[in-house]
Amino acid sequence: MKSKKPHDGIILGPNLGDKSLVSTISGQDQYGKVSNFNVIEERPLSIFLNSQEIVTAMTIGDYPEYLALGFLKNQNLLKSDDLITSIDYDPDIKVVVVRTQKETNYEQKLKRKIRTSGCAVGTVFGDMMESVEEIKLPYSEVRTSWLYTLSREINQMKSLYLEVGAIHGTVLCQEDNALVYMEDVGRHNAVDKVAGWMFSNKSSPENKILYTTGRLTSEMVVKCANMGIPVLVSRSGFTAWGVELAKLTDMTLIGRLKGNRFTCLSGEKRLIYDVTLDQ
Amino acid sequence: MKSKKPHDGIILGPNLGDKSLVSTISGQDQYGKVSNFNVIEERPLSIFLNSQEIVTAMTIGDYPEYLALGFLKNQNLLKSDDLITSIDYDPDIKVVVVRTQKETNYEQKLKRKIRTSGCAVGTVFGDMMESVEEIKLPYSEVRTSWLYTLSREINQMKSLYLEVGAIHGTVLCQEDNALVYMEDVGRHNAVDKVAGWMFSNKSSPENKILYTTGRLTSEMVVKCANMGIPVLVSRSGFTAWGVELAKLTDMTLIGRLKGNRFTCLSGEKRLIYDVTLDQ
Repeated sequence: MKSKKPHDGIILGPNLGDKSLVSTISGQDQYGKVSNFNVIEERPLSIFLNSQEIVTAMTIGDYPEYLALGFLKNQNLLKSDDLITSIDYDPDIKVVVVRTQKETNYEQKLKRKIRTSGCAVGTVFGDMMESVEEIKLPYSEVRTSWLYTLSREINQMKSLYLEVGAIHGTVLCQEDNALVYMEDVGRHNAVDKVAGWMFSNKSSPENKILYTTGRLTSEMVVKCANMGIPVLVSRSGFTAWGVELAKLTDMTLIGRLKGNRFTCLSGEKRLIYDVTLDQ
Repeated sequence: MKSKKPHDGIILGPNLGDKSLVSTISGQDQYGKVSNFNVIEERPLSIFLNSQEIVTAMTIGDYPEYLALGFLKNQNLLKSDDLITSIDYDPDIKVVVVRTQKETNYEQKLKRKIRTSGCAVGTVFGDMMESVEEIKLPYSEVRTSWLYTLSREINQMKSLYLEVGAIHGTVLCQEDNALVYMEDVGRHNAVDKVAGWMFSNKSSPENKILYTTGRLTSEMVVKCANMGIPVLVSRSGFTAWGVELAKLTDMTLIGRLKGNRFTCLSGEKRLIYDVTLDQ
């Protein structure tokens, strides 16, 4: 494996410089000793699509525009032909408003749904699942050497997780390079911020690998599929439905990546074993 | 510390006998070797309050009645004077319906909210926060010896987590005894199932300790406060808002409990240091 340092080639890394993301709180330890502890922030952020309030997310508070955009895209509430005219964030009232040129299909659906007495959450869920059934992710290669390099570098990279803990990370990768590393209290927010970044920067998904510190649940797989990324990797484990949805969309799903060990439960055809391991 | 075994005194433990909670999936490992892996199930469950659909939760699928009841109670959608007439679970359509004698305050609010074009999620969030501001949890004692015993026993207790991973646990405890241990893919579901059990069994919260494997976020603290339990303990870390809400409700909040170490960031007054540790 070639020798390179974590952070080499990274475009957007963990937000260590932003002191507003961490609070210092006085407490006591197992000896009864009083000291200060650093704790990650968590704030509500309400996301609006035009005049419609969609959700209140709990977030550390960085990149609210990426979070809102990525959330709406990943939940399939914004279609690719919806033209976004503005994204406005108001830090005082903790609201971000994504505006489109025309009323979206979702807003129409929501109105209809409300008239029939159902709840918006059900609509969101239904829309998300509906969209995933149509997705077939393109073929790509995944070398096992990339997985090992990414795992090592991401674990060593300076992050809010290493500083204060209680936070998840999602990393957009290409081959063995980490490109964009987002963190948040909710693993879903971290992946939505990556999606918002990709959409804003017109980043193509076909040759990417998405790494998450969180578990490979149905929701993570659906978000990754909606982003068009064919490979989802985690240090954590799987749920059965996550695996099922990965198979349905032709996604390569790799979990329990630690050191040189991993488990692949879907899309094994993309794997290229280019590192010989001692058995 | 007295010597007792994990499972001593437990009323309801992890659901190891239920084979429907685990799937066996073929995959391959880091050597390219094909084998079978056990993976936790994850299924949608739609929760209705009378004729109103409230949420679709992703759950492993055990104790749907406790989950629905606990969710509605913890979100403050059911008040203490709402008389529950039935809880019906239909496994075919994966729906659980909680019925009350009269239409609830929440259903009225939801109708009003819909008329003013907002989304149900916002209502749920607002209601949850509104309720917590009125809560002042009663005084109780927490001996550090209890914390160490609980931590050791819960970590050793047979569980789906130890069998297949990718799952969170919540344990209702009294002194150094684990009473009810619920697991789920979402840490919120596990705590809601405990809440449903407590409500169904008229278990008093004042002398209880709630242990969670998940992080101490605002939502976990709010749920614990709504359950009336004055002490919340985790092996994981904190968020700043979680700590703030714990202080607001006079809750003892203990995180990073591992071996004989812990950090207490709220409600230190309940702690009794009855174990002398080597420094």
